[in-house]
Amino acid sequence: MMLEQLRHWRRDFHHFPEPGWCEYRTTSLIAAALSACGYQILLGDRVLSAAAVMGRQIDEAKEKARAAAQGAPQEWLEASSLTGLVAVLDTGRPGPCVALRVDLDAVKVQESQDPRHLPDQQGFASLNPQCMHACGHDGHAAMGLVLGQLLAQRREALSGKIKLFFQPAEEGCRGGKAMAQGGQLDDVDILYAIHLGIHAGSGEIVVAPTGFLSSTKFDVEFHGTPAHAGLEPNAGANALAAACQAVSQMLGIPRHRDGLTRLNIGTLNAGAERNVIPSFALLEGETRGASAQLNDYMFGRVQQIVEGCARSYGVDFRIRKQGEAVSIENSPRLVHSVTVSADRLGFHVIHSRPFGASDDAGYMLERVQKRGGEAAYLVIGANLAAGHHHHGFDFDETAMVQGVSLLEALFEAALQPPAEISD
Amino acid sequence: MMLEQLRHWRRDFHHFPEPGWCEYRTTSLIAAALSACGYQILLGDRVLSAAAVMGRQIDEAKEKARAAAQGAPQEWLEASSLTGLVAVLDTGRPGPCVALRVDLDAVKVQESQDPRHLPDQQGFASLNPQCMHACGHDGHAAMGLVLGQLLAQRREALSGKIKLFFQPAEEGCRGGKAMAQGGQLDDVDILYAIHLGIHAGSGEIVVAPTGFLSSTKFDVEFHGTPAHAGLEPNAGANALAAACQAVSQMLGIPRHRDGLTRLNIGTLNAGAERNVIPSFALLEGETRGASAQLNDYMFGRVQQIVEGCARSYGVDFRIRKQGEAVSIENSPRLVHSVTVSADRLGFHVIHSRPFGASDDAGYMLERVQKRGGEAAYLVIGANLAAGHHHHGFDFDETAMVQGVSLLEALFEAALQPPAEISD
Amino acid sequence: MMLEQLRHWRRDFHHFPEPGWCEYRTTSLIAAALSACGYQILLGDRVLSAAAVMGRQIDEAKEKARAAAQGAPQEWLEASSLTGLVAVLDTGRPGPCVALRVDLDAVKVQESQDPRHLPDQQGFASLNPQCMHACGHDGHAAMGLVLGQLLAQRREALSGKIKLFFQPAEEGCRGGKAMAQGGQLDDVDILYAIHLGIHAGSGEIVVAPTGFLSSTKFDVEFHGTPAHAGLEPNAGANALAAACQAVSQMLGIPRHRDGLTRLNIGTLNAGAERNVIPSFALLEGETRGASAQLNDYMFGRVQQIVEGCARSYGVDFRIRKQGEAVSIENSPRLVHSVTVSADRLGFHVIHSRPFGASDDAGYMLERVQKRGGEAAYLVIGANLAAGHHHHGFDFDETAMVQGVSLLEALFEAALQPPAEISD
Amino acid sequence: MMLEQLRHWRRDFHHFPEPGWCEYRTTSLIAAALSACGYQILLGDRVLSAAAVMGRQIDEAKEKARAAAQGAPQEWLEASSLTGLVAVLDTGRPGPCVALRVDLDAVKVQESQDPRHLPDQQGFASLNPQCMHACGHDGHAAMGLVLGQLLAQRREALSGKIKLFFQPAEEGCRGGKAMAQGGQLDDVDILYAIHLGIHAGSGEIVVAPTGFLSSTKFDVEFHGTPAHAGLEPNAGANALAAACQAVSQMLGIPRHRDGLTRLNIGTLNAGAERNVIPSFALLEGETRGASAQLNDYMFGRVQQIVEGCARSYGVDFRIRKQGEAVSIENSPRLVHSVTVSADRLGFHVIHSRPFGASDDAGYMLERVQKRGGEAAYLVIGANLAAGHHHHGFDFDETAMVQGVSLLEALFEAALQPPAEISD
Repeated sequence: MMLEQLRHWRRDFHHFPEPGWCEYRTTSLIAAALSACGYQILLGDRVLSAAAVMGRQIDEAKEKARAAAQGAPQEWLEASSLTGLVAVLDTGRPGPCVALRVDLDAVKVQESQDPRHLPDQQGFASLNPQCMHACGHDGHAAMGLVLGQLLAQRREALSGKIKLFFQPAEEGCRGGKAMAQGGQLDDVDILYAIHLGIHAGSGEIVVAPTGFLSSTKFDVEFHGTPAHAGLEPNAGANALAAACQAVSQMLGIPRHRDGLTRLNIGTLNAGAERNVIPSFALLEGETRGASAQLNDYMFGRVQQIVEGCARSYGVDFRIRKQGEAVSIENSPRLVHSVTVSADRLGFHVIHSRPFGASDDAGYMLERVQKRGGEAAYLVIGANLAAGHHHHGFDFDETAMVQGVSLLEALFEAALQPPAEISD
Repeated sequence: MMLEQLRHWRRDFHHFPEPGWCEYRTTSLIAAALSACGYQILLGDRVLSAAAVMGRQIDEAKEKARAAAQGAPQEWLEASSLTGLVAVLDTGRPGPCVALRVDLDAVKVQESQDPRHLPDQQGFASLNPQCMHACGHDGHAAMGLVLGQLLAQRREALSGKIKLFFQPAEEGCRGGKAMAQGGQLDDVDILYAIHLGIHAGSGEIVVAPTGFLSSTKFDVEFHGTPAHAGLEPNAGANALAAACQAVSQMLGIPRHRDGLTRLNIGTLNAGAERNVIPSFALLEGETRGASAQLNDYMFGRVQQIVEGCARSYGVDFRIRKQGEAVSIENSPRLVHSVTVSADRLGFHVIHSRPFGASDDAGYMLERVQKRGGEAAYLVIGANLAAGHHHHGFDFDETAMVQGVSLLEALFEAALQPPAEISD
Repeated sequence: MMLEQLRHWRRDFHHFPEPGWCEYRTTSLIAAALSACGYQILLGDRVLSAAAVMGRQIDEAKEKARAAAQGAPQEWLEASSLTGLVAVLDTGRPGPCVALRVDLDAVKVQESQDPRHLPDQQGFASLNPQCMHACGHDGHAAMGLVLGQLLAQRREALSGKIKLFFQPAEEGCRGGKAMAQGGQLDDVDILYAIHLGIHAGSGEIVVAPTGFLSSTKFDVEFHGTPAHAGLEPNAGANALAAACQAVSQMLGIPRHRDGLTRLNIGTLNAGAERNVIPSFALLEGETRGASAQLNDYMFGRVQQIVEGCARSYGVDFRIRKQGEAVSIENSPRLVHSVTVSADRLGFHVIHSRPFGASDDAGYMLERVQKRGGEAAYLVIGANLAAGHHHHGFDFDETAMVQGVSLLEALFEAALQPPAEISD
Repeated sequence: MMLEQLRHWRRDFHHFPEPGWCEYRTTSLIAAALSACGYQILLGDRVLSAAAVMGRQIDEAKEKARAAAQGAPQEWLEASSLTGLVAVLDTGRPGPCVALRVDLDAVKVQESQDPRHLPDQQGFASLNPQCMHACGHDGHAAMGLVLGQLLAQRREALSGKIKLFFQPAEEGCRGGKAMAQGGQLDDVDILYAIHLGIHAGSGEIVVAPTGFLSSTKFDVEFHGTPAHAGLEPNAGANALAAACQAVSQMLGIPRHRDGLTRLNIGTLNAGAERNVIPSFALLEGETRGASAQLNDYMFGRVQQIVEGCARSYGVDFRIRKQGEAVSIENSPRLVHSVTVSADRLGFHVIHSRPFGASDDAGYMLERVQKRGGEAAYLVIGANLAAGHHHHGFDFDETAMVQGVSLLEALFEAALQPPAEISD
């Protein structure tokens, strides 16, 4: 029953996945549903710091048109340029402000058409080409929405304030910093953030995950000189060749003594025509490190390599940061209380396990913690059909039920009205 | 006056450049103009062999909409799916069939905005982003059109038949073979093809250019496995990295003892998202050689490299031919008669000079020559502001007048009615 | 005083460093010194399994001549083809067999001539070009020798047997497996192995280091076809180019989700003459991994890359293993007793800390442990002037005193005669 | 009979090949033989400009020892440090000074052991490892020697002076400039240089070869920082990796519009030990171009690439020129007279054919021509078993007879005493 609700929303979002900054349909549907049960809705333009928005190069009109065609309610669709929302339910009674943060966006992967892939079998595979919920954010969004509905039903028994943060553009670490600086976190006392899967199976929970990676998302442009490839190849300055060498060199940045590092060049687009020496190239990449220092080491080498390749090929270059993430450390008191609650609900509690990726929820947790609140990032285990970002990714939907049950318990415990004191 | 006409059309075509297979506006305007002065118009669908069309991956509806918005007459626009045309003028009197072949398409280069660039100064620079007449085909098209108008005026004084071939998609050598096999060349007795510029200045003509390069245009796809770049980079098979290594290796294919070779990878598009190990890559490239053997040597090495890189990175690959060109050798009798005419018109006649590039007009000349006709490819010299395919390319427009005067003389000489014999 | 002895030997070995399998002088001097105080000496040929010797390509006559010229006692020098030795002291009284394993070889690094470099200042810098004790094995050898002398003096107070293993060719993990399979370990009850430095400072000891890396040492040969580089570059198959691409690709092998991996190509020698397309190339490299699986992942990718590059360049290849190392886990009872002794001697005891490198002592410890004995690898902290293998490497010599004191205590404790039972 | 002599010497030189600047045996044997028939012998130290010697890094003592062991006459061996010689025969009668230049050195190629390889079959294959007469200089040296002997026999019938230049170190273009500036050419009126093979078959002669390439021979060093490859790969600056990328980039230097270019990296030696990040690398390479401008274009790009790769990898670099060659153009009058003589001797005379390689004889011809003399470089055709520098190279020995016959005729014609004038 709770499973049915969760499955309904999760599969709906999975069917119509939207990449970062394009979550118009997802945002609008959540806004409509939570508004209907009494939440105050604050859309993206009101809850994101425009100055901190990164990596947003979209065709807004086109994306809104697509969202409308795919069923986004018009009144919510038109009300904001930026996606994402915060839904607020004030019980009117004194008490803490307890919050959840989930994310909404999909990944630019073409979904598998393998008949064994469940979304394909069950008819809810992605309808949007080169776009897929291959990381589980469809589940996160469904969990935030259903938790909101459940808490609204229990409203009269609670005191304090509920805030549900639906963050856009987590992929690429582009939206978290903007939401952290958007003002709505500043009265939050307790903040939870969640992720399904990530090295934990169904029934498991990691209450103090480690190994969140610092990360820099960057674009590199090379600008050379075009020339006719048959008549005078020598007259060109080949930006594509420079980019290819830079990729080879970056992939070879030495591993670091002090711990985990990562580099990926996710896209490379270069040149315009087959018979012209290509005069521009654009790479989109990211570095990661187990610490800010390790990430800085990687990004420093990237800069050096870009300069070197530009020199070798006589081309100009430009490096631009497009996203960032910081590490995460859970507040000890929350780790303790989550452990107790999860244990009571039958979870297999794993204290810590490396996360191995980045999440810009880090900016939001850091904001709450720096202002005296408490925050925790929880990994809700889920059996997976294939790894995160794989085109055959899918997760055990019952894990959503377990996660929402736990969150409901945590919210209710924190929002308990003070026991009346009889004289 | 002839200069004004030529300049009018050339600048109009330059203002609205269209890439190969998208020349809807150019085709329609030429069709309208030549139809108006009596030519029978045969559009692309009727004069191209569909089986021999190469490298045509376009969004036809979108391109036609653009062409319409930029002034293409609707009746001609809708009449054919393929671009290009043949305009036929039959004098009704017995005589040879004399033909000209010009090309229509622009290059995917962003035009210079340097204030010294004449098209910018004079307000006829490209309005279409990433598209520019940087090779002179705007001039070729204008010359074919104006020659057609002039010959139509002289119709009564001529006998035989005139055929004007406006070939689409010369860039990338994609349309020539289809036009050669389209049937309309099979009654042609004399065929001229022209190119402006190419190492010859205004007032010069090269009557027997050499060094036309054999060429193969190809696409390479690599298909790997996506994976989350932070969580498990080891699980991916990186198609982008394979492509980058392939580019490096291809650029290093050894020069050949027997003569000129070329290789270019003009475009590389790979990957979908910054934080996903890229699972596909597409390269568009070309090899060239001074002979078919040399081109085969280059293309053979390309295939070997693609196989090797696919093996190294554990990715799949596919190689597809997207265009081809053959060498050209002018018919000696035409070389002689052009020399005489050009000399009379004051040209500085250069017998032979290396062309150094490819032109798929070669298939058309070969077709005519193999069936017993005669054919010649003429380089009409023109002073250039910058090299072919450079973003600052521009040519001396008076060269078009010289070229049309010569062609007019050649056509008239060939289409002379037999002298009447008085008794 | 013990410091003077240790310093004497360490500086002597440092002055005349010998690469793996060439430690003729070092071996002979140790044999002479320990023989003089009563040890039975078993030289390399008797204590190494010839079948398990790896990576030994030396000019034996030349190396022995050099050793002789540099002071190796002739009688020991001539007695064995293989280097290394085991020195045995049997007290004649019943008791356990307690053993120490140290290594002897230097690294192929040219020693720093910076005036601040202490060996240079004090006149004991390497006299052998491109060879330097830059890892501390000079200290290890000195410690083994001096420990042997001290224990010989205490012989009458001890029962059981002492075995001192001086292993050749640790660098490159080439000698450990051969010594493990040579027979002399098979009666050993307790085996210690030591290393100076490695992330621990003077006064520190790591009693249960982790993070020993599995490793494969390999050579790759590429064989192509030579050709005149001016006349017909196309006729060659370029082995040097294939090797360069292979290096680029190997350095870019993706990091692995499951933990630390390493790859290095330490040497590349290719080609014979400037104007000939190079027809052969030899790479010497190594992979490492925090587990056997991770090392296998790396080496598997290396093989795939070598195949791919050979295909790309039309060259043949050959891959040969030249050395191997396995992980190490200390016996818990020894960890405990070392902790107690080290604590008593004033060491700052660090339980575990990652080692981050490979040591083929692992084969020897594994051998003893598998046969029911106990073994431990101890990191004796030492302040360093520069990192291991750096040309400015040097260590605090007092650390040797601390190490030998601890080893002496451990040996004496284990070789204590049973308390006499009076009736 | 002349064939037997030529074959004897050629096979002897082939059996004991010597690389550039190491031709001690070859030089000494020629000196001895020509001295014996009356020539004045001037050895290397007297005929080479020390300042212009390039690319000479040899172990002179070791090479002389080898030469002695392989039969070099001691008196000639000891008389000069530099190899090569000039043999002078002055008839004592007035007349021109006519000269021949041949070269002596072998190539660093391991000779084929294929049983079909004639030198192997006949037992005169190279005895020196990694060294082979794979270019035909054994034949050139034999021809120079035998010509000298024949002319000495005819001495009384001639007037003027004969000079035979035996140039060392032609491979790598290292000795020609030094011999050109050594003083001995300055009284030469007519200079011939010869090469066997090179695209011409037995019985053919090319009297005005074209396409001699300008060339620069260079070494590149990269200097980085060593580090332990397992412990802290990040601390190194990898010179080997920088070199590999530089090679990849250099092989990809774009072909040039204006004509033939070449690049080869003939050797790469980097790193010292498998488990150390390699801190140095040495590349030996060459650029060539059909003109000085084209060679400059190539070498300019090389410099740019070296700078770029050094920047990318944080390593230092050094580029050193090691050899140079210039173009060659034969004196027209000599072309004519050779044509006449060759035709008379039954040669198939080819006027011009591209040479496609470099020869630093160019400096010697240029010297003579600039001082008012005449010079010609003649390609004496010879059927080849495999291309120049191939390990299976061999040539038709009868071509030597044809060549010497022609040279003898040319010398005799030029050295004819003036006809006596009777009164």
